[in-house]
Amino acid sequence: METKETGRVEAFSDGVFAIAITLLVLDLMHLPGQEGDTLAERLAGQWPAFIAFLNTFATILIIWINHHNLFTNIRRTNNAFMLINGLLLLTITFLPFPTSLVAEHYGHPEAMLAAALYAGTFFVMACAFNMLWRYASHEHRLISSAITSNEIRSINRQYLFGPTVYGLAFILAFVNVTACVLVTIALAIYYAVTASTAKK
Amino acid sequence: METKETGRVEAFSDGVFAIAITLLVLDLMHLPGQEGDTLAERLAGQWPAFIAFLNTFATILIIWINHHNLFTNIRRTNNAFMLINGLLLLTITFLPFPTSLVAEHYGHPEAMLAAALYAGTFFVMACAFNMLWRYASHEHRLISSAITSNEIRSINRQYLFGPTVYGLAFILAFVNVTACVLVTIALAIYYAVTASTAKK
Amino acid sequence: METKETGRVEAFSDGVFAIAITLLVLDLMHLPGQEGDTLAERLAGQWPAFIAFLNTFATILIIWINHHNLFTNIRRTNNAFMLINGLLLLTITFLPFPTSLVAEHYGHPEAMLAAALYAGTFFVMACAFNMLWRYASHEHRLISSAITSNEIRSINRQYLFGPTVYGLAFILAFVNVTACVLVTIALAIYYAVTASTAKK
Amino acid sequence: METKETGRVEAFSDGVFAIAITLLVLDLMHLPGQEGDTLAERLAGQWPAFIAFLNTFATILIIWINHHNLFTNIRRTNNAFMLINGLLLLTITFLPFPTSLVAEHYGHPEAMLAAALYAGTFFVMACAFNMLWRYASHEHRLISSAITSNEIRSINRQYLFGPTVYGLAFILAFVNVTACVLVTIALAIYYAVTASTAKK
Repeated sequence: METKETGRVEAFSDGVFAIAITLLVLDLMHLPGQEGDTLAERLAGQWPAFIAFLNTFATILIIWINHHNLFTNIRRTNNAFMLINGLLLLTITFLPFPTSLVAEHYGHPEAMLAAALYAGTFFVMACAFNMLWRYASHEHRLISSAITSNEIRSINRQYLFGPTVYGLAFILAFVNVTACVLVTIALAIYYAVTASTAKK
Repeated sequence: METKETGRVEAFSDGVFAIAITLLVLDLMHLPGQEGDTLAERLAGQWPAFIAFLNTFATILIIWINHHNLFTNIRRTNNAFMLINGLLLLTITFLPFPTSLVAEHYGHPEAMLAAALYAGTFFVMACAFNMLWRYASHEHRLISSAITSNEIRSINRQYLFGPTVYGLAFILAFVNVTACVLVTIALAIYYAVTASTAKK
Repeated sequence: METKETGRVEAFSDGVFAIAITLLVLDLMHLPGQEGDTLAERLAGQWPAFIAFLNTFATILIIWINHHNLFTNIRRTNNAFMLINGLLLLTITFLPFPTSLVAEHYGHPEAMLAAALYAGTFFVMACAFNMLWRYASHEHRLISSAITSNEIRSINRQYLFGPTVYGLAFILAFVNVTACVLVTIALAIYYAVTASTAKK
Repeated sequence: METKETGRVEAFSDGVFAIAITLLVLDLMHLPGQEGDTLAERLAGQWPAFIAFLNTFATILIIWINHHNLFTNIRRTNNAFMLINGLLLLTITFLPFPTSLVAEHYGHPEAMLAAALYAGTFFVMACAFNMLWRYASHEHRLISSAITSNEIRSINRQYLFGPTVYGLAFILAFVNVTACVLVTIALAIYYAVTASTAKK
């Protein structure tokens, strides 16, 4: 017996996305700096944390919008689908940790490892998103039969862009930390622009 | 293809509003004060944190009520609308940070910058709210056709009040911190009173 | 124009209740104790925090159940109702703070003030709950017309029990902290027992 | 009068599950280690925290999937059912605490007590889950009459597996901490595999 409605999977996922995106601010609350520093100096010294906050916020928001769009095509759910969705949510809840590491170590030699973990988490996130769609769409397992096989193949190709770019960013982390982070920022901006101009 | 239902956008937004409003208490939990102080002295010394907590709580609650009322008019959603909504949510999740800064620095010279950041966040929040409504209502893009163009123009004018007053509060921060904070408190009270006596 | 559905008010409230009840555990995570203490000694030394955690958890859960039951009678919502509901949610989000104070100061002279704040928050919470019902039920403002005036008066009387007992607990805080806390625990148990045996 | 819909109980539960599963990351954010350690050394030294994070995440996710599946059979709700559900949620919100204790003390003599608390919390969680089902299914109290008594007895037997294995893990904690934790990991994997291959 498969349950027809996906309401609770979406509600639970919405909860996790909403909490993860809201917890990001907690990492800003511990201003670094020495006793004699002014507030302006301490805020200015925290600029990598603000960039990392904005980038992770934007990425989670865009993944949520994509998750929302993907689920408009989902008609049924089953346990395997919920487990793959759980893997996606695992990467979302994990994101505040590498975000904090990148913010803390940017400009130091340790930043390479932090950036690799940051881009690596985005990479696993994008892979889990692809798995979620491919599992659901394979032989129309959980999606509406109104979607044609050509449309599925087209979405398959389109979704590969994320893991490809995040995989590149992961490799870039070991070459140049700034380039790695800029690629993840560029991808967030690219998705935001294409999403907002898309017909859908 | 535009999805007809706004359920998940509302659920995700509700989650973010609910979490941001609940996280505010965490900033009260670190009582300042020296070893010899009594609990009463430490609580009394924290009065700016209590005021800031109440003011931000009330403002988020009122924005949520307005968000709720705005969405009763929304019939469809699209990616651009979700991105503007995401910008509004960004300011909501960010609020605990300037709230904490104002509470910590009130009465010190640093308070000017903290108050400017506090009022500035409210200003961006109010602007994002206006953008959300204007994007949705422009040529009835996402709203019910039952709403007349005159009603839209009337709501447009009414919504401009928020950014105007918060913009004023932002400028006031550089003149007098107390006046800046009092303006944001007065606006919260004004909205609460007019909201509760409105026919709607 | 009054909106007919109470769905988003319930969703937002559920979010706040769920987050407040889940954040309580954070206060357990900072085990007190000195370097030489064993884990068992540190856990044992934290027993007031465990009692306070359980008591506040149970009270929030019971208020949520009552909120759920109250809303089964609500047919409409308006801004004033959402503001009173916001006052109730304010006390719920505030609860982790006095819970932490009672846990930290139990057995010390400071406990009197902490217990007064704890019972006082419960008192305001119970008053807000009464206001919510009385505002909604007054002349059947927001409730189903199927509920008779006699039933409303009966519920009015029944709901007065909470503020009365929490008011008593508040006064007791200044006489005997243990008695004050025991009264709030007894009330949680009383509500749990009567709720689970009620026909409703 | 019993309310027919279980929507708000599920929404509140989803909120608690989502927040508890997302808060787990906060315990990773405080990297241990001394000043001279590299980031790689500090991350490597935290491996028990990563294992504990993954294991608790997976267990909460699986309990949520089971909660979801159980509720597809629930037709009504009442106060006693909501209280038993509250007991289950209590164990879920409590989990970050023993998870943190196991991660912190693994490899030290104190780990025995931490592991016993960890497995013990899982045991109470599994018992509460069984109580929830048995209370709802007893004489078809809250479930659909389409479910036969034979199916109920079959589910009863199947659900006993969880408390049995977690009870064993609890006893194992006093013999061998690693074996205790491995049993809880094995159970999470077993549930994930059987769930994803089940017809349901």
